[in-house]
Amino acid sequence: MADTLVSLGLENVVVAETDLSLVDGQNGHLVYRNNWARDLAIHHTFEEVAHLLWYGHLPNAEELKALVDALAAQRELPAYIQALIDSIPADVEMMSVLRTAVSAVHVSGEAFPPTLAQILELTAKLPTIIAHRYARLNGREPIAPRADLNHTANYLYMLKGEVPSAAHVRALDAYLILTQEHGLNASTFAARVVASTQSDLVSSITAAIGALKGPRHGGAPSEVTEMIEAIGTKENAEPWMRKRLESGNVLMGFGHRVYRTRDPRATALSVVAQELAKDDPWFDLALHVENTGLKLLQEFKPGRQLNVNVEFYAAIVMRSIGLPDSLFTPTFAVSRTVGWSAHILEAAQMRIIRPQSTYTGIMPD
Amino acid sequence: MADTLVSLGLENVVVAETDLSLVDGQNGHLVYRNNWARDLAIHHTFEEVAHLLWYGHLPNAEELKALVDALAAQRELPAYIQALIDSIPADVEMMSVLRTAVSAVHVSGEAFPPTLAQILELTAKLPTIIAHRYARLNGREPIAPRADLNHTANYLYMLKGEVPSAAHVRALDAYLILTQEHGLNASTFAARVVASTQSDLVSSITAAIGALKGPRHGGAPSEVTEMIEAIGTKENAEPWMRKRLESGNVLMGFGHRVYRTRDPRATALSVVAQELAKDDPWFDLALHVENTGLKLLQEFKPGRQLNVNVEFYAAIVMRSIGLPDSLFTPTFAVSRTVGWSAHILEAAQMRIIRPQSTYTGIMPD
Repeated sequence: MADTLVSLGLENVVVAETDLSLVDGQNGHLVYRNNWARDLAIHHTFEEVAHLLWYGHLPNAEELKALVDALAAQRELPAYIQALIDSIPADVEMMSVLRTAVSAVHVSGEAFPPTLAQILELTAKLPTIIAHRYARLNGREPIAPRADLNHTANYLYMLKGEVPSAAHVRALDAYLILTQEHGLNASTFAARVVASTQSDLVSSITAAIGALKGPRHGGAPSEVTEMIEAIGTKENAEPWMRKRLESGNVLMGFGHRVYRTRDPRATALSVVAQELAKDDPWFDLALHVENTGLKLLQEFKPGRQLNVNVEFYAAIVMRSIGLPDSLFTPTFAVSRTVGWSAHILEAAQMRIIRPQSTYTGIMPD
Repeated sequence: MADTLVSLGLENVVVAETDLSLVDGQNGHLVYRNNWARDLAIHHTFEEVAHLLWYGHLPNAEELKALVDALAAQRELPAYIQALIDSIPADVEMMSVLRTAVSAVHVSGEAFPPTLAQILELTAKLPTIIAHRYARLNGREPIAPRADLNHTANYLYMLKGEVPSAAHVRALDAYLILTQEHGLNASTFAARVVASTQSDLVSSITAAIGALKGPRHGGAPSEVTEMIEAIGTKENAEPWMRKRLESGNVLMGFGHRVYRTRDPRATALSVVAQELAKDDPWFDLALHVENTGLKLLQEFKPGRQLNVNVEFYAAIVMRSIGLPDSLFTPTFAVSRTVGWSAHILEAAQMRIIRPQSTYTGIMPD
């Protein structure tokens, strides 16, 4: 064990060389395959950016049409998946339902290696699974997907039962693009570990959903809305947040494990959110909470450069388009499936991931 | 990134300090919490060794009874899990069915942190899930679990429809004990990554099952029986294996990524297998294949010390007790769930696992 390194969180260990993304926390940079994620979110669509991550380049018109059509054609759930979703007790949380239903999807072709065709089949179905369950929880019939809407618009349509406004689609599209990929976070890494055994695509994505379900990873956005709800009025923002910081708690939506500057995704989402929510008093309150939080954090944690992160603006965007907190993490899974599957294609070509442990017990005689 | 290490397979990185096990490949040692795994397999039962891994010590009579009873009481599947298993198309492989059904189990209590009570609930149900599906695939009604049989005996009973012989129970028990725990293999590591996000027990075990499904990890035992079947007769062993080695292929069941000596689990299983299969011509053939393989490997790979691994004897044990190849990896999951869950209890208390990647693409302007 002479040449081993001990790193229990792997913070300083590189386990992949990839052109999929660069997450540069020091400089606040997020790059998806040679493009700024920020620019992609403002100027492109979910399908275009997915094409970039899956195929290595932004699509031309023909490639884009092929991808849009392929996803649209695969949205329907087989009857047995619908029945399976309906058989799960109503008190089981949405992320568990999503994990189980995705695990039950039987993509075509051989199990290994994963293919882009399988990825399209699975990616197309995640929104339908969530919308099916959401409809049942709300006591109504699930709405069948519409093949004439793009991925994001169809998701909103199935959730809400009406064709969404262009502004809502654009806002959600930006959020989904900005969360498609983010390096070796725990869910993506779990997907890569599973893929490295030459297991199948569905096993890897199921593992990733299970990791995203963990509140340390995918579970925080709803806490931001809860905080803003609890604050309630602009006048209450400073006393509420001051009290929280004085009692040693953190402010939800501020700070990120990686970014030492403003989360670049927050910057892009703030552009979108401002367009969307001009006349929304709740949005006005949220902006005031952000500014108050920044001011207080400079007082309580000087030099720490704690800025709002993507979860802060994600919460605002999700709320502005009318999605409840219970859909935040599942919606995150809808987008991150793109990054997971791009990483799975890479990891399936690589060696098995099998680290070491140090035995701290006693040797038997 | 000055202090980072690049290790794409993490072979030389320690990510856990644990007293659960020592896997010492150089010396052929396998220790479970201060005990030789070999001795545990020969002298103890599934429940006793699970108690050691879960609670930290071998049980006294009272503790053992409590554990045996708790597992026996939790074996039945809720009706919705039975319906869910039955809804999955017949051509979906058993490991995928197991992954989906385990994902659907709703253990009691809060989601995080995982508890021993949850672990017992889930561990108790894996054999029932497999036996339920196996019965359906064979066109018969699933057999309800029996609370008066121990974990291993009940599993065999549900699979075969009759109370198994003591010799069969003992052989399978030894196999299950020897595969309960084996350090940070890919499935255990996947479970730990998921648990490190503060996700729930079921998410972690589901991820592990997906990893074990990969042929690089859990998928090889059936290849050993296929090899022995293909060889067919003692006379054919040497020409068949020589031809395979000459064409650059490996011999299934020989060699292990970790062990440089005989796999210590193979040693323990060979004791059990010899008792079990004294008069079995197939077992006689398998021993001849082992000896022939060892001789040829010294010729073709001198100095490599390639010995038979646990999969070789696992295949023999499983076949001797009448379990088909399709149940090898699912049965591996039945035992490894013990080790997975012990690791999950540890990992849930630790930091999130989030490694680095190196960006190999171009920086945008």
